[in-house]
Amino acid sequence: MTKIEELLANATPAEARIMNHFAARAEGFRPSAVRDVFEVAMRPGIISLAGGNPDLDLLPLGELGAMSARIIEDEGLEVLQYGSGAGLEELAQLVCDFMGSEGLSPQLDDIQMTAGSQMGLDLATKLFVNPGDVILAEGPTYTGALGVFEGYQADVRQVPLDADGLDPVAVEQAIAEIRAEGKKVKFLYTIPNFQNPTGITLSDQRRAELVRVCREADVLIVEDNPYGQLSFDGLRRRSLYSYDPENVLYLGSFSKVFSPGVRVGWMVAPLRVRKFLQIAGEAVTICPSVLSQRLVLGFMREGLWEPHTRRTAALYQQRCQAVLDACEKYMPEGTTWTVPAGGFFTWLTLPEGGKFADAADALAPAIEAGVVFIPGSAFYEQVEVDGALVNPGANQLRIAFSAVEPEVLTEGVKRLSQVLAA
Amino acid sequence: MTKIEELLANATPAEARIMNHFAARAEGFRPSAVRDVFEVAMRPGIISLAGGNPDLDLLPLGELGAMSARIIEDEGLEVLQYGSGAGLEELAQLVCDFMGSEGLSPQLDDIQMTAGSQMGLDLATKLFVNPGDVILAEGPTYTGALGVFEGYQADVRQVPLDADGLDPVAVEQAIAEIRAEGKKVKFLYTIPNFQNPTGITLSDQRRAELVRVCREADVLIVEDNPYGQLSFDGLRRRSLYSYDPENVLYLGSFSKVFSPGVRVGWMVAPLRVRKFLQIAGEAVTICPSVLSQRLVLGFMREGLWEPHTRRTAALYQQRCQAVLDACEKYMPEGTTWTVPAGGFFTWLTLPEGGKFADAADALAPAIEAGVVFIPGSAFYEQVEVDGALVNPGANQLRIAFSAVEPEVLTEGVKRLSQVLAA
Repeated sequence: MTKIEELLANATPAEARIMNHFAARAEGFRPSAVRDVFEVAMRPGIISLAGGNPDLDLLPLGELGAMSARIIEDEGLEVLQYGSGAGLEELAQLVCDFMGSEGLSPQLDDIQMTAGSQMGLDLATKLFVNPGDVILAEGPTYTGALGVFEGYQADVRQVPLDADGLDPVAVEQAIAEIRAEGKKVKFLYTIPNFQNPTGITLSDQRRAELVRVCREADVLIVEDNPYGQLSFDGLRRRSLYSYDPENVLYLGSFSKVFSPGVRVGWMVAPLRVRKFLQIAGEAVTICPSVLSQRLVLGFMREGLWEPHTRRTAALYQQRCQAVLDACEKYMPEGTTWTVPAGGFFTWLTLPEGGKFADAADALAPAIEAGVVFIPGSAFYEQVEVDGALVNPGANQLRIAFSAVEPEVLTEGVKRLSQVLAA
Repeated sequence: MTKIEELLANATPAEARIMNHFAARAEGFRPSAVRDVFEVAMRPGIISLAGGNPDLDLLPLGELGAMSARIIEDEGLEVLQYGSGAGLEELAQLVCDFMGSEGLSPQLDDIQMTAGSQMGLDLATKLFVNPGDVILAEGPTYTGALGVFEGYQADVRQVPLDADGLDPVAVEQAIAEIRAEGKKVKFLYTIPNFQNPTGITLSDQRRAELVRVCREADVLIVEDNPYGQLSFDGLRRRSLYSYDPENVLYLGSFSKVFSPGVRVGWMVAPLRVRKFLQIAGEAVTICPSVLSQRLVLGFMREGLWEPHTRRTAALYQQRCQAVLDACEKYMPEGTTWTVPAGGFFTWLTLPEGGKFADAADALAPAIEAGVVFIPGSAFYEQVEVDGALVNPGANQLRIAFSAVEPEVLTEGVKRLSQVLAA
């Protein structure tokens, strides 16, 4: 029984009466597949490889507190008031400058600030997707994106990732096949850098090719780049946006390198398309939090952004290495994993014929052993194979290293390895 | 040409290509009918009766600034991190207590925090409304609600307000007529206290009756109460929610009595329905800004809420009186207006046979004369009368008094009266 079915089955008569009026799209609402796991992760003694949170320990909290006091005292009448639906212009300008480091600065008018990059994904889906329309996504992909897409009754098709990211040839084929079914492909959703959940990065050679394939097929790209700044080599990868700004809608985030708790992100789209996104966004939140935007602006303006990004990226690199070393040392033979060049995650594939065919079955024994992770199935839609529904990620799992100390990660991987060993 | 048509007509070829992939619902997206007017309102020398903003001058900015500094320094690792999708539990608890003053405290589990009450409206509409479903609303109603409803392709039917608010008999009839058309009525959207745009308050006698009618007809009520605390007599009206918590979804706001810039509101629904709203909300913003919620919590906890509410309500009462007095003194004979018992707005009806049959036609000459307001048509959907589309609010207009000094309001009403005089 799914969580949704559970909610329906356990409803009181009064609740059931209201639920009877739900819209059709409510069937697509699904609770975060990872939330239950996060609750387990809070238990004392449990090592969490489930994560997904940035480490905030390096934030200069004293400095930030003093900044917020000054902002509220001096600019309270503006930052506590309604703001522009497009967002704080000074922050949008800094975003333009910042994006130059990824190959192309957008025009100021093309920037739409959001209450987090998740909201950008919601707005893009709202603007483009009719029920039944196809969204192409990576297999596996961010579970929160699948939640959005299902809420709009999209038909999500996932194209498998390899070590170099999405294969443009596979994308081209998928588009052709879907069109042969008579369906519309509304956009390709991709996380090109240090992908969630795999840590995989789209290779340079494939970027131009992927952009070309999508442009020629007239399929919009939604490029989600929350982790791009957190590269271990300090380099910024070129954005897909920079290759074809007229066919790429870019989503940016301040959650992974500053603070998810303030809820600020941005999106980029050609001006008049951006205006539709603004209209859709105003209907949801009127404007992003002005105070939050002003804090992010202060953080960037006072030069705290770059050093904080470098320091946290170095932290994540150490942690990543601890996980990779521990996998090498402890994981059962035949297990494979990705080697991320940045970000929060690595991705394990269990050996065929190992103890668990489905990583989800390893979750309960892992919790018993004091470690928790996210099973791979959370990042996939089920697909039909020979008339049966299967999940292509059953034999996989995600390890997040962003918020845990190296020695704890080592112990966590060790515990998990023991559970997975036959 | 509507703004949407303008955007489409002026699109570059690149934009037009993307727009070609828009979902059907994008046709319902409409820019805030009042945004252009707000831009005019910023011009020097213009007196704005357009408003809608709370006055923040009485906020203790120094105290708030110091509080935010303490919060970030002491609790930064929590308030800058991802938070619960349901919201900050301590704040939800205060909301429960607070709602007791309106007749009934909800259970903690029934509270869903939102990034502003606008988001509550979006989530309710998303959860219940299929394209073509009917939403009953007041005529006139909040223009931002019409924007949400159209974005979900709802069929909005407005029931006229009289001096005592919605007439339950008229609501009952409307439901019967709509059902006779074979259509589904998904909910009644109402602002019972100091309504936007009219300032009208639903009478006590009608509350129980309206709740009964809706329950018997199995039509959910969405009660939006952003202004309820700002009563001029200091009394809190009973919530519709308190009459029938199993059939009323309540929307609350911190925007009108604290700060719209932090974007925090809440909604109340029976637990399992609330969980669906949480799932829908997480897909949009993951969680409301934790920092913002913590600031609101601090403001309430340190006892700043009640005195601030009382002081601003007294301020708005003076301003309201200034408008009513000036209307009495200057408005052309036959003009009528509402006498609000709280909130931000009064509502004028122009005399038949006066200079302007449509208040929108008075806008340009009013701006010329140095005053700006929102024409009544912004708060209505057009309806078909004898085969022609008409707007029932053409002969009406909204005056907002919340953010303008009394003597300036007097001068503004005087200028407007001169424009409206034959």
